[in-house]
Amino acid sequence: MTTVRPNLEALELIADTEAEILRLVGTSDPATAGVYEMMRYHLGLDGSGATSGKRMRPLLGLLAYASIAGDYQPALPGAAAVELGHNFSLVHDDIEDGDRERRHRPTVWALHGVAQAINTGDMLFSLSRMALHRLSDLGFDDAKVLRIMRLYDETCVALCEGQYIDIATSEADDVMSVDLYFDMIGRKTAALIAASIEAGALLATDDDEVIARYRAFGWALGLAFQINDDLLGIWGAEQSTGKEPTDIARRKKTLPVIYAFEHAGPEDRERLAALYGNGGPSGTEVTEVVAILERAGARDYTREQARRHRDEALAELDAAGVVEPEARRRLEEIIVSVITA
Amino acid sequence: MTTVRPNLEALELIADTEAEILRLVGTSDPATAGVYEMMRYHLGLDGSGATSGKRMRPLLGLLAYASIAGDYQPALPGAAAVELGHNFSLVHDDIEDGDRERRHRPTVWALHGVAQAINTGDMLFSLSRMALHRLSDLGFDDAKVLRIMRLYDETCVALCEGQYIDIATSEADDVMSVDLYFDMIGRKTAALIAASIEAGALLATDDDEVIARYRAFGWALGLAFQINDDLLGIWGAEQSTGKEPTDIARRKKTLPVIYAFEHAGPEDRERLAALYGNGGPSGTEVTEVVAILERAGARDYTREQARRHRDEALAELDAAGVVEPEARRRLEEIIVSVITA
Repeated sequence: MTTVRPNLEALELIADTEAEILRLVGTSDPATAGVYEMMRYHLGLDGSGATSGKRMRPLLGLLAYASIAGDYQPALPGAAAVELGHNFSLVHDDIEDGDRERRHRPTVWALHGVAQAINTGDMLFSLSRMALHRLSDLGFDDAKVLRIMRLYDETCVALCEGQYIDIATSEADDVMSVDLYFDMIGRKTAALIAASIEAGALLATDDDEVIARYRAFGWALGLAFQINDDLLGIWGAEQSTGKEPTDIARRKKTLPVIYAFEHAGPEDRERLAALYGNGGPSGTEVTEVVAILERAGARDYTREQARRHRDEALAELDAAGVVEPEARRRLEEIIVSVITA
Repeated sequence: MTTVRPNLEALELIADTEAEILRLVGTSDPATAGVYEMMRYHLGLDGSGATSGKRMRPLLGLLAYASIAGDYQPALPGAAAVELGHNFSLVHDDIEDGDRERRHRPTVWALHGVAQAINTGDMLFSLSRMALHRLSDLGFDDAKVLRIMRLYDETCVALCEGQYIDIATSEADDVMSVDLYFDMIGRKTAALIAASIEAGALLATDDDEVIARYRAFGWALGLAFQINDDLLGIWGAEQSTGKEPTDIARRKKTLPVIYAFEHAGPEDRERLAALYGNGGPSGTEVTEVVAILERAGARDYTREQARRHRDEALAELDAAGVVEPEARRRLEEIIVSVITA
């Protein structure tokens, strides 16, 4: 515990995380400058003033560390690694999903082609690992650094497993089950958010019970975050989320849709299958799908799931016991702002 | 040094490396079985009897270790990591180059689409890192494991940098320089071969001078290997290499071509530029390109470069001093069989 009240303003933490990332992607020799520029462009660190995402994962990791240790600076390499790792997966996801835009700018593959975009993602992945080595320079002992690396590597495996399920079920005609959905978002979304928070705790304490609580907190939060995102993808208001709710038009099999496939009446289910068939619902059909989902109780169910996991996250955080009040307040602030359900 | 004469048969080392790899890709739960199958397919470990590549990188690493320590088993996690890392890059290269076949079988993307193939490559990358954690289980101390990881991570960065140069110069109209070519193959090919050999030495000894010699040996060998590959890509006989020499038809800007662009007479150079223009040389034009290369002395130059770097590799190996004779003999065997120039 520090005696001075720490400054844990989100803007400050984000600026420091970005500076840590720029240590790795900031410069290069002329022969390879292009790939570094592509990385900075994607990360919103190219000085164009483009919005760069919420940096939610590094923020959560830094605050988890601060909630135990008081300050946050020693956890910056972990925060940078998580953000780089998250962005490696975004660059590849954009190709895999055929998305030409992200945050109102062309994606890397749309600008530079699939070949360079795959490689730029690989580069972000490689550099995310390099970020972790700076923990040694900051004085963390080898055993702890290795433990963080193992956590990170296991998380990357989970991430790819989740992505495999996502691609396989998107391409297949049959909609997946609610059970498989939770399995998938656990690997694809909750694993990295949990790892970020667990890593923050792990760097701050040797108490395995506390570390496990933080992980459980992060896992529940990660599930809540994804479920909330599914809700916004259908019922979100563009003015508050910054993106149009296009999940239905894009035939995405998110939780409300999967739930409706399992719980709608036989007629609605048949109609839903037809609408989700070849080409997917268009224009007015989207409204029809939404009506089916609402009749099936999918909206209420999804909202309830998001809230349930958010409350579980807060309960785990309370149960962890060791909490610096300012960091704790900031963590809760993020949770409440992110889970709008 | 062991007193018993070690068994260093290539087939034995390869079988043990594959068993080590199968610890990671051998099984999975039903939800993710598909991505594990794709990895085993690509690695030639799906039991189909398909040829699986030479496993040159792990072999070199294991023999480097054995040439100092006598046995090779403790170096198996490193060998597995290098082979998995190499194969991650092959899966992505196949997409980036649009290659539908590798070793007479369809590539992963040709079978399962670009999305699954990108993700399968990412998964191989993630598992290559998991392979290294087993060094801790085998009793290597944390400092050494971390040093191996840093070497591996730096190598992956170099690999992506080299790949960036390769894609950028393939897509650009101007042919690159001989200098940039050596820069590129250093990062793209020599770095991983050098890292494999350096890692073998690093696991076997704490003598930094010896480790540096092994690295220099690997680097020179890596350059020789790539230059020799360029030679075979134009003048190789399919019956001995197993693949058609198609580099010219595919407009690949390999060393002989780059050299000819720099050294051919003005008329030949102009003709070469025309033939390498839109669409690339076809049929009889390939013969014309080969004639231009030969007139410019590109074949002799390239052969000379391959030999020079091979000899440098052998000299570095000699200078390292610490060599178990059987391992040394096997290393030389590989070098001679691989560099046919």
